[in-house]
Amino acid sequence: MARPAPKIRFLYTGIRVRDLDRSVRFYKAMGMRELFRGKMDHGGEYVHLAFPGSYVRLELNYYPKGNKFYEAWGPGSEFDHLGFRVDDPDRWLAKLKRAGATEAIAAWSETGSRIGYVNDPDGVTLEVFGPDPAATKPKRRRRAPA
Amino acid sequence: MARPAPKIRFLYTGIRVRDLDRSVRFYKAMGMRELFRGKMDHGGEYVHLAFPGSYVRLELNYYPKGNKFYEAWGPGSEFDHLGFRVDDPDRWLAKLKRAGATEAIAAWSETGSRIGYVNDPDGVTLEVFGPDPAATKPKRRRRAPA
Repeated sequence: MARPAPKIRFLYTGIRVRDLDRSVRFYKAMGMRELFRGKMDHGGEYVHLAFPGSYVRLELNYYPKGNKFYEAWGPGSEFDHLGFRVDDPDRWLAKLKRAGATEAIAAWSETGSRIGYVNDPDGVTLEVFGPDPAATKPKRRRRAPA
Repeated sequence: MARPAPKIRFLYTGIRVRDLDRSVRFYKAMGMRELFRGKMDHGGEYVHLAFPGSYVRLELNYYPKGNKFYEAWGPGSEFDHLGFRVDDPDRWLAKLKRAGATEAIAAWSETGSRIGYVNDPDGVTLEVFGPDPAATKPKRRRRAPA
């Protein structure tokens, strides 16, 4: 039996970017794929991205200077960060830095997890967390004698 | 065959709130359920919420005055809005207003969709969109004569 469609879905988070191409490159380097893009009537542009196999999207919004939604870019306090669960935090953090992210809080280990924060090219903070390889390394089982 | 776990997941979006109870009440009225909550070492508090059946979370972060992450609350421009796809936008917008949201942009119809924006109790903007009932009402098929 087909499951009924959910009545409400937390579908995406929209952030503002100052250079659409730069941000698309960055989030693609993270593994996201572009789903679609478009222009708003008032001249703004948007791009939706998602990881393959997931419906959850990141929306990049760009408002050119002179646009009614344009404002000088500045951090505020209603937004905190985006959270990404990964298989190998240190490898992902290095990958993001190569793609243009800057370190916000150096990675640390805590109760079996490894956690680090970087900022995307606009300064949007990304938390990258997952299992701490040092804590979860499985003990190799000794092979039973033949 | 079991599918391998995704290597990276866009798991949650964290927003900052000034009154944790008020925000939890608001997002629960929206249909989310509290998954867990905790205290950070430095005194901040967080709550994770999600709609039933979805892994995507909203994180509410609260930093008390005096906390090292505390700052006077103010909107910025790195964050734009959260997007929620719903079955009946007008009904959901009314429900959110009853729960404490304020109108940001009145709902309008556009190419078969109905879209509206409200602000949550802290001023975080929520887009609510879905099919426009006026545009999508299916035509009743005439029954073929017996």
